Amino acid sequence: MNRPQRAVASHPKGIVPAYRGLYQRLRSEILSGRLAAGARLPSSRTLASQLGVARGTVEVAYQMLAGEGYTIGDGARGTIVNPALPRGKRPRSYETAAGQSDEAQPEAPVHATPLLFQPGLPALDAFPRKAWARIAVAVSRQLDFEQMAFPGHLDPMGYAPLRRAIASYLRIARDISCSADQILITAGFQGALGLIVQTLLEPDDKVWVEDPGYFQAHWLLRGMPLRMVGVRVDEEGLDVGAGTATHSDAALALVTTTHQFPLGMTLPVDRRLALLDWADRQRAWIVEDDYDCEVHHRGLPPPALKSLDRNGRVLYVGSFSKVLFPGLRVGYVVVPAALSDRFAHAARAAQPAPALMTQKLVEGFMSGGHFARHLSRMRSLYTERCKALATALEDAMPQRLQISLTDGGMHFVARLRGKTSAAEIVTRLRAKNVGPSALSLCALRGGGPNGLIVGYPNVAKEDAASAAQRMLAAMR
Amino acid sequence: MNRPQRAVASHPKGIVPAYRGLYQRLRSEILSGRLAAGARLPSSRTLASQLGVARGTVEVAYQMLAGEGYTIGDGARGTIVNPALPRGKRPRSYETAAGQSDEAQPEAPVHATPLLFQPGLPALDAFPRKAWARIAVAVSRQLDFEQMAFPGHLDPMGYAPLRRAIASYLRIARDISCSADQILITAGFQGALGLIVQTLLEPDDKVWVEDPGYFQAHWLLRGMPLRMVGVRVDEEGLDVGAGTATHSDAALALVTTTHQFPLGMTLPVDRRLALLDWADRQRAWIVEDDYDCEVHHRGLPPPALKSLDRNGRVLYVGSFSKVLFPGLRVGYVVVPAALSDRFAHAARAAQPAPALMTQKLVEGFMSGGHFARHLSRMRSLYTERCKALATALEDAMPQRLQISLTDGGMHFVARLRGKTSAAEIVTRLRAKNVGPSALSLCALRGGGPNGLIVGYPNVAKEDAASAAQRMLAAMR
Repeated sequence: MNRPQRAVASHPKGIVPAYRGLYQRLRSEILSGRLAAGARLPSSRTLASQLGVARGTVEVAYQMLAGEGYTIGDGARGTIVNPALPRGKRPRSYETAAGQSDEAQPEAPVHATPLLFQPGLPALDAFPRKAWARIAVAVSRQLDFEQMAFPGHLDPMGYAPLRRAIASYLRIARDISCSADQILITAGFQGALGLIVQTLLEPDDKVWVEDPGYFQAHWLLRGMPLRMVGVRVDEEGLDVGAGTATHSDAALALVTTTHQFPLGMTLPVDRRLALLDWADRQRAWIVEDDYDCEVHHRGLPPPALKSLDRNGRVLYVGSFSKVLFPGLRVGYVVVPAALSDRFAHAARAAQPAPALMTQKLVEGFMSGGHFARHLSRMRSLYTERCKALATALEDAMPQRLQISLTDGGMHFVARLRGKTSAAEIVTRLRAKNVGPSALSLCALRGGGPNGLIVGYPNVAKEDAASAAQRMLAAMR
Repeated sequence: MNRPQRAVASHPKGIVPAYRGLYQRLRSEILSGRLAAGARLPSSRTLASQLGVARGTVEVAYQMLAGEGYTIGDGARGTIVNPALPRGKRPRSYETAAGQSDEAQPEAPVHATPLLFQPGLPALDAFPRKAWARIAVAVSRQLDFEQMAFPGHLDPMGYAPLRRAIASYLRIARDISCSADQILITAGFQGALGLIVQTLLEPDDKVWVEDPGYFQAHWLLRGMPLRMVGVRVDEEGLDVGAGTATHSDAALALVTTTHQFPLGMTLPVDRRLALLDWADRQRAWIVEDDYDCEVHHRGLPPPALKSLDRNGRVLYVGSFSKVLFPGLRVGYVVVPAALSDRFAHAARAAQPAPALMTQKLVEGFMSGGHFARHLSRMRSLYTERCKALATALEDAMPQRLQISLTDGGMHFVARLRGKTSAAEIVTRLRAKNVGPSALSLCALRGGGPNGLIVGYPNVAKEDAASAAQRMLAAMR
């Protein structure tokens, strides 16, 4: 067996003794605060082995640092960065918390609480944390080959038991007849849309988006080599007729059907059929973004557009961001059966599925029955909170706000009376940690109605009146 | 407040009584095995509320199913799918395992063990599972607003403490001078490359890839609207001169510098400088894929190409797939400081960072000192296993294999003597669960040397001889 003896690339800096270079690097880490006060340095043996230098080299560097007061000994526990250094801060350590107690207290997060009325968040107080943590603990301890392996060695479409659970849920709850083979697990809505565009579209293809529509989707598509065209939304939802009249040659239409984002209306069946008819004729694709269908206030949510799709033109995109929580970043696409192989191929390269650990967690939550129970509880809680807050806001500001509730969704729109723009009001409110968004965020072009997108799920019924007063005070 | 009373979309099927439709859906779930034998049905109240139908409707459907033997009562615990049904299988339940014992046994995974010699996997037996699980448990229990919130509400580049930990590690271990502001957390290498292409390239731009090179990157780029051009790899690595001679107008070069994939040589410094020079002149980008730099057998790995980058042309891509495990799907890019804002903007739309839970886990592992210790242990273990297996294979098959070890990497290449193609041998070996890959997998065009990519990390030193014998037997 041969070992080539050729020189490897070396750093073309001047020659600096190894201990001095190491000392300088560590010192600058400490001075910048990147090695925080109190942080433990690796043992000289560990660091020497890691860097491939002699242990003595590390020891000299450590002695220099200690001699200048950058580090101090911490008894048998080794060397730490001097906690008395002015720029330092105490490092975070999960280790300590976990080691000392099973009831580790969460540290103060960067954003400790949601803003009042922040849209896009489910009711965080209603999430079954204990059941979730119990499943997470079990999954974390199952660090077997399957969890550790390269996802490409597993099913590129995602964790099969989760795909079966989703297919079963969609058949029962959304009237979508699909098999697990058609389900592709993605990193949320973004991952789904990215993969769809990459798999089905050509550069410069035209894509319909709703105007106003989901701003994240607008941002995402702007970053792609496509022509995004806005199709107007009227009081019934996407104006399919306007779309076909002006941009009939589009390759894809992105549409929110159950609850239009942001306005909340349900796309009526005549428009659904017209949209499908256009896609069939044009051989175009429809991406149905059914982002919060589960939060419906009046009876059964209408069946998905996908359930009417006879010719396999609809890609149904769902997500756990709203029904569980957004930080989870797990979503899925139902792809037409004829495209399953094509998507499996694309998924093999792009690997859109999140870590198996995360997928197993969601699957455990579904198959343990927590998902169904959670949905059921959310449904009544949301209806109650939505009504209570809308009433309280109108009562508090009858001259300034007008709220028309729709049949569902995790926010409602409050139209603003008067001349002050929503953007200006939002700026004023944010200064007081009141966080609705301006409706204009969703408009592709300027104009459109003057209004606020108000997230209600995190306002308990009994707090609705005081929350409305807080907003009123902040608007002044 | 108004509630519009307009009709919502209704399903245009014939009218079927609600209980009968529900019965049919549930029955077909059970018959197909998608609702597995033993699976618990939601309570009639829960399902009724979830579907927005009367509870009586669900009860009638349940009675029909029970009457036909699809379900049975399970005492006070409700109704389950009849475990005696022939097509059923027992559902998995994390709940049960977690509830009964803290030492829950992992269930048999889909792929129970790696194939012998499977490339791309770190030594699974050497991973510090206990420390990892301890941190995972602590993170799972901290389900605070930060973890639950939409990632877009947080830093789009990723979890700041993890970015600081990575920047600090790169400065010390890879001689890369960068700040945490330049670190972008991604879903592994795939996520990183996808975002780079989307952010920096135009449709039809030319991209250099190594030939032979990393097949996953080839697959990924083929799915994008780009012109991928193969640049040959000779015995020193990427032939930069050949690239500039034929495709000087490329917009990006993707290169493995520390250990060329798959051949393992280190790109010498003259070629590094030539590559940088080309990028500077051409205003092209270099993506440095430093996928397994940490596994270096001879002293300190050479500094990264990025450390020589004076003009901000190099995007350094790293990953935890090799140093922790691939299933984790956490990687990162070091972007030139001048591009930080552009990438932050792109990341805001694309949200490439994995769930915060996963990022916190990695950060806890790094700041707890486990990462440094693990690297240090892996380094000596890998050198030992690599040598032992290469020797054993050459001893067992001196007429058929020739192995030239390089300075690092998680696999080695065994050249095949004789006329049988690697692809044919791989097929034969896979039938016996022996899993090296054919070198030809990495070639853009046919041809190239006939050889196998052998992953050695999961073969203990003392098992090397028997593993070699197993391969010899399987090759016959």
